[in-house]
Amino acid sequence: MMIATPYLLYLGHSNDEIGIKTSRGLAVFRPDICVGEFRHDDCRLTLGLPRMGFADAYHAGARTLVLGIANAGGRLGAELVEDALDAMAAGLDIASGLHQRLKDEPRLVEAAARLGRSLHDVRDPRPDIPVGTGRRRAGKRLLTVGTDCSVGKMYTTLCLARALADRGIAADFRATGQTGILIAGSGVPLDAVVADFISGAIEQISPDRHDGGWDLIEGQGSLFHPSFAGVSTGLLHGAQPDAIILCHDPLRSHMRGLPHYAPPGLAECLEANLRVARLTNPDVRAVGIALNTAALPAAEASALCDRTAAALGLPCTDPYRLSVADIVDTLVEAFD
Amino acid sequence: MMIATPYLLYLGHSNDEIGIKTSRGLAVFRPDICVGEFRHDDCRLTLGLPRMGFADAYHAGARTLVLGIANAGGRLGAELVEDALDAMAAGLDIASGLHQRLKDEPRLVEAAARLGRSLHDVRDPRPDIPVGTGRRRAGKRLLTVGTDCSVGKMYTTLCLARALADRGIAADFRATGQTGILIAGSGVPLDAVVADFISGAIEQISPDRHDGGWDLIEGQGSLFHPSFAGVSTGLLHGAQPDAIILCHDPLRSHMRGLPHYAPPGLAECLEANLRVARLTNPDVRAVGIALNTAALPAAEASALCDRTAAALGLPCTDPYRLSVADIVDTLVEAFD
Repeated sequence: MMIATPYLLYLGHSNDEIGIKTSRGLAVFRPDICVGEFRHDDCRLTLGLPRMGFADAYHAGARTLVLGIANAGGRLGAELVEDALDAMAAGLDIASGLHQRLKDEPRLVEAAARLGRSLHDVRDPRPDIPVGTGRRRAGKRLLTVGTDCSVGKMYTTLCLARALADRGIAADFRATGQTGILIAGSGVPLDAVVADFISGAIEQISPDRHDGGWDLIEGQGSLFHPSFAGVSTGLLHGAQPDAIILCHDPLRSHMRGLPHYAPPGLAECLEANLRVARLTNPDVRAVGIALNTAALPAAEASALCDRTAAALGLPCTDPYRLSVADIVDTLVEAFD
Repeated sequence: MMIATPYLLYLGHSNDEIGIKTSRGLAVFRPDICVGEFRHDDCRLTLGLPRMGFADAYHAGARTLVLGIANAGGRLGAELVEDALDAMAAGLDIASGLHQRLKDEPRLVEAAARLGRSLHDVRDPRPDIPVGTGRRRAGKRLLTVGTDCSVGKMYTTLCLARALADRGIAADFRATGQTGILIAGSGVPLDAVVADFISGAIEQISPDRHDGGWDLIEGQGSLFHPSFAGVSTGLLHGAQPDAIILCHDPLRSHMRGLPHYAPPGLAECLEANLRVARLTNPDVRAVGIALNTAALPAAEASALCDRTAAALGLPCTDPYRLSVADIVDTLVEAFD
């Protein structure tokens, strides 16, 4: 999938911060390829980018409108379709991570064909994913794992990619979700892959690597989430990680969407991930803990990281708010 | 999916026992709904059923031709399509567990529409599978798990269903693979379900049960198979089993299809399955070991079962060759 850049980021009528997380992720991690944001007058959110109409955005260089929002059920509503039609008329391609596919909306397909535009459904896996083999591959791999869904695995992986680049260490972010795919320009939408191919999909996006650098693989779900642990298991086996970082939201009182399930303890969760990972890489080791402390005062966040580091004997940080230097040090020391 | 019975079982030109395992499974476990077998003159295999042409089979009561064979790549070859067209002309519906779908072969679709016949692709999951919740459901559940793929999980589950029925205990076989689905008449082709819905698919086929009986759920894959452990993990969580039986092929020297992976030890495998299962059912317990001893002399098979039982402190048998009475006793004693 080659999506033309730069992007115009769609906010539409959104007034829910969680609903715009794909657009937000792009603005945070790829400001270099985002020329502006599109929002209607009733949208009170902003990504801090210039507000633009479709024609202005095209003239400013934008080539693709990214529908980086999530609405109820992941549907393409009538207004979204109208906006996408207007954007195509102004010269833009369309990319979407919504559950309902662009290619299943006849009006969009017709307009794209007529105008010579491209429609990108980033939730469609490529058709040639192989069954996994567990064969050891050349190169070094790190995987972020979590106590739960939505605890910062993508942010942690991207912050680490940036920090390694700053130190001149070759590293590539390997995306496994729709936001990550839009950020990286490639990857696999793992939640949409057929069950028999989960580990094979990860083997495919992280092949043999011979330059001494790292593949940094975005984690999904949690071994302790009853809905999605199968995905996390196949991801661990396909990634055959040399190193894992455990991501956690310290304010999470129950597993996402499941009030009857408590989050696991950090030590228990770490040990379970190492145990599963050893099947395809017996030498796997933990190199850090990442906490999402956004809701805590700064002093409390730092103190919590310190306590957690002491308790688990691993560097602990909030990768987005604080520094990942300690984790990078551990990584360099352990593997170079 | 309502597939009309009884069945005519297709062997075609097959001369490979493993290739006819779906037809064989139906002949073994559902002789009551199999009126005959169809084979060409060059097929040297038999299921022990009367050999019939399509018209004869229809007149003998058959209503569906089951393409219970697997050929290279799971493809519908030209000869298979010709035979299916002839069968439809003679009055039969078609059911297939092949990877390539009947509905994707235009000649079959056209003939079915013209003749008023039904095409059943048992590898197509139903479209309304929910995300799993891990909610505890009423009723008792048993799941077969394995050290590897193809070690006898379906046979074990079906033998147990028969033995419980013989003792007057209510029990239903819940199918998760194409052969099992054809045997049971319903179920989910778990390997074809999208990754996010693995555990939800099992919750759907084994809902609350209030009659005091058992759901006996057919296992898939192995937690120790690097290609498919994600499927096995989601299956364990969705099944939330009260009881598990560990299935094993004592002659397997490496994991199926992966010469570089050794099978796990029985105790290690059992403990790993119990650990994963505890997430959705903390009270899960092992009730037996099932060995596939088909390749061993009778005395050796019995001795191996005895040694294994003593080593693991659980009843051990070959459910198809010997008796499952000890496992049923354990089950009754533990849960009644």
